Amino acid sequence: MALLLRATTWGLCPWRGYSSKGAQGALSKGFVEALKAVVGPSSVSTAAVIREQHGRDESVHRCQPPDAVVWPQNVYQVCRLAALCYCQGVPIIPFGTGTGLEGGVCAVQGGVCINLTHMDRILELNLEDFSVVVEPGVTRKALNTHLRDSGLWFPVGRPGTPGPFPGPWGLPGSRIFSGLVGKGAPAHPGSPLPTLCPSDPGADASLCGMAATGASGTNAVRYGTMRDNVLNLEVVLPNGQLLHTAGPGRHFRKSAAGYNLTALFVGSEGTLGLITATTLRLHPAPEATVAATCAFPSVQAAVDSTVHILQAAVPVARIEFLDDVTMDACNRHSKLNCSVAPTLFLEFHGSKQALAEQLQRAEEITRHNGASHFSWAKEPEERSRLWAARHNVWYAVLALRPGCKGYSTDVCVPISRLPEILVQTKEDLKASGLTGAIVGHVGDGNFHCILVVDPEDPEELHRVEAFAQHLGRRALALHGTCTGEHGIGLGKRQLLQEEVGAVGVETMRQLKAMLDPRGLMNPGKVL
Amino acid sequence: MALLLRATTWGLCPWRGYSSKGAQGALSKGFVEALKAVVGPSSVSTAAVIREQHGRDESVHRCQPPDAVVWPQNVYQVCRLAALCYCQGVPIIPFGTGTGLEGGVCAVQGGVCINLTHMDRILELNLEDFSVVVEPGVTRKALNTHLRDSGLWFPVGRPGTPGPFPGPWGLPGSRIFSGLVGKGAPAHPGSPLPTLCPSDPGADASLCGMAATGASGTNAVRYGTMRDNVLNLEVVLPNGQLLHTAGPGRHFRKSAAGYNLTALFVGSEGTLGLITATTLRLHPAPEATVAATCAFPSVQAAVDSTVHILQAAVPVARIEFLDDVTMDACNRHSKLNCSVAPTLFLEFHGSKQALAEQLQRAEEITRHNGASHFSWAKEPEERSRLWAARHNVWYAVLALRPGCKGYSTDVCVPISRLPEILVQTKEDLKASGLTGAIVGHVGDGNFHCILVVDPEDPEELHRVEAFAQHLGRRALALHGTCTGEHGIGLGKRQLLQEEVGAVGVETMRQLKAMLDPRGLMNPGKVL
Repeated sequence: MALLLRATTWGLCPWRGYSSKGAQGALSKGFVEALKAVVGPSSVSTAAVIREQHGRDESVHRCQPPDAVVWPQNVYQVCRLAALCYCQGVPIIPFGTGTGLEGGVCAVQGGVCINLTHMDRILELNLEDFSVVVEPGVTRKALNTHLRDSGLWFPVGRPGTPGPFPGPWGLPGSRIFSGLVGKGAPAHPGSPLPTLCPSDPGADASLCGMAATGASGTNAVRYGTMRDNVLNLEVVLPNGQLLHTAGPGRHFRKSAAGYNLTALFVGSEGTLGLITATTLRLHPAPEATVAATCAFPSVQAAVDSTVHILQAAVPVARIEFLDDVTMDACNRHSKLNCSVAPTLFLEFHGSKQALAEQLQRAEEITRHNGASHFSWAKEPEERSRLWAARHNVWYAVLALRPGCKGYSTDVCVPISRLPEILVQTKEDLKASGLTGAIVGHVGDGNFHCILVVDPEDPEELHRVEAFAQHLGRRALALHGTCTGEHGIGLGKRQLLQEEVGAVGVETMRQLKAMLDPRGLMNPGKVL
Repeated sequence: MALLLRATTWGLCPWRGYSSKGAQGALSKGFVEALKAVVGPSSVSTAAVIREQHGRDESVHRCQPPDAVVWPQNVYQVCRLAALCYCQGVPIIPFGTGTGLEGGVCAVQGGVCINLTHMDRILELNLEDFSVVVEPGVTRKALNTHLRDSGLWFPVGRPGTPGPFPGPWGLPGSRIFSGLVGKGAPAHPGSPLPTLCPSDPGADASLCGMAATGASGTNAVRYGTMRDNVLNLEVVLPNGQLLHTAGPGRHFRKSAAGYNLTALFVGSEGTLGLITATTLRLHPAPEATVAATCAFPSVQAAVDSTVHILQAAVPVARIEFLDDVTMDACNRHSKLNCSVAPTLFLEFHGSKQALAEQLQRAEEITRHNGASHFSWAKEPEERSRLWAARHNVWYAVLALRPGCKGYSTDVCVPISRLPEILVQTKEDLKASGLTGAIVGHVGDGNFHCILVVDPEDPEELHRVEAFAQHLGRRALALHGTCTGEHGIGLGKRQLLQEEVGAVGVETMRQLKAMLDPRGLMNPGKVL
């Protein structure tokens, strides 16, 4: 390791003086050979189809392919790749499952895409300490599959129940424990990446990618976001040095030791370093689960119910809001018969006795606020039926205009400001002539406006962008944030400046310059 | 504001060229006059007694007084003070309630102590959004007094029940809402600071100070630490610029917007800037509370019970461990009749029905692990009687050697490693010949060894230090941290290096150099 670190300094860099870029802006042959020398010839690709698969995520941002894609097998190879790119001034774009929503993997300056999904081991599972260490190829579903009989689970992520899932690409997923390489990633880097379902973005993201984005999802109201659940990170810095943000091998529950480096890298979107392992906090799997839905006469009544449920300390696990347009779309798409009205979808976790009480309280509160059709379900099949509308929102909204793509906004405001911003947003939607529906993690004040857009229509794309920017500014004016969980990526850099102000952005710029002095890590993102 | 910011740059600094230090190392007369011009003559003191009151905290670190103490009234004065010190190269030491435990306020290079307790307003309370903004003079108890009838509370801190408390110095505390200046701080800066009870360190710390330390306490197992409960910080940077870490006025529950500047300043111990306001997340006050205690045949049995309670998802609010020595000391001191055995003190928050179930589960689990004497109490007086031993630990242990001072270690390990480190620590205690007892927030893996030491005996002080360092290294060897909640301060800088490794410390050093390029903010601490 010491040798490796020394080799990353300029003086000892074996590649210094190479021209990394050839005549057409592609990488030089010598540089590609150097990449192959690190990871093996079959783990480097410059084929156009592969590069294009790695130049876009699930968003509407246009594809900007990298010059090469490499698949390292272990952290030491990642260190060597970073050192190599550092010496040559070649940009690096970290790549997980490609399920981001803000163009985070677009190679705006070309460079090397480092696909980390071949590193897919669960390195360490500490059941008594409620912690696990995973590599970037391990997805949320794969981890929960691995944990199935342990009594623990990892709750951060999108709708779905804990339990058996298929792996990231319909394979059994990465279940391999301690030292063995799993098979969750395609065996051959040269073969096309299996297509993730484009209508369910982020559905089964890489856990390290979720850490890099600062992701959250439907359970955040009870279990927190990635910011609250990452205990330690292994990070390869731009110069190839290896950093353990909380110290090597450490997985304690709390600490007051020095600056919080873990939090600095959670949500840094690959712009400060490559996350090669994440230590996560696990939670006890709920003994029982109950789902419920109820419809309201107004948005205000739904939000009031949410605030009252939280104030009454009902430990709700999920509380999701769907507007009337979304409910209508779901009825049509899934042949349901739900009320076409603002609706809350709730989920409770706990003992059977505790659930009965939680349910009773929630029903009292929602009825007091004018809710009708309060329905609940205990068994998995019933829950699934009840939550069908929520699960199928993306499909249902897309079905409003077949052949179009979806774009999701992502603002978050103080809960008390939700009613006014939701009402304003619906008016804006009408005025814009766009097709869209609203769904939100209302317990956190976070909501998405799912817009359906023809990707071949530049004028409509422009209107979508204008609508999203306007919504971001509305959220900022109400003391909110322009992104609750998707990140800044390419499209929200101006909004970030408005959100944190001149001194905040300048501080962020200094952080970036300090950790990535050559500006090579995922350039053009966040700042 | 724009003018103020411009004045902080070197070119416009009105004090450039002044010699801030006089012949004896004290500040020059001109500099002291400049301080008075900012805050008024009665809010600056260079009197020896005042300086000495500000040169130590509640730890055994020797007093190192600053050259002057100033009491700003508002954030703009703090900006001007910082800019002035920046121009002159004078160190700044932020001061709250002085209840730290690691020498964080010792002025190791002299300089200006900025006592922030005259800024004691509760600036904004958002009940529907579960958030509050407080200035540095507002203590935890003062906030909870203010919140008494709101249905919300702030749970981070030491043992005690939510509800009415006396203010920080036995006065009613800072209850003033929105724009009015409270009277929780002494009216005249020249008068001696009221002595906080030295046997209950941190008992009623400033909330901004708790943010600066990354504090936690007994409720952390359920409600998290300051890291989890600070939503935004107003920070005066070393050059006098004003930073809002999450953007001005923002108080959303979650965000993925850019680098997490809030987390960077939580736990920075005054070394990166002065925290002048903190936005905190509030929690619903529990409908009912039950306390319980039970004694165990071994440390292992107590820790096993803790792990099983957590695994069973019993949402315990507090789970505290006291060893046999501590229990014996408490029996003697408070004339109690508790078992002299490893003991757990538990507290549950919830509805009455939920509490009955939680209590039943906890009792089943502890009995299964060999617990005896499981007692519980619902009413405040009963709870207080039951928890008397826990509340009086510090007094009881000090009473083992009248006239001596207490020193508290503060390591945290993965819960599974607690039994072995507790057993080893008890053996180390015996071998060292020191008097000490163990008490811990066992649900987090965090425990304190309270050592009783004669502050006039340098040899004994040396043995205490050696014991603490040895214990820190034991925790590090078990994947733990050298401080769970007290911070690094002066005494744990070497341990921090061992904990995070060379790259970690170098990254922290770069952060410090970036934000405080002249090394003026609380020098000599953390790094």
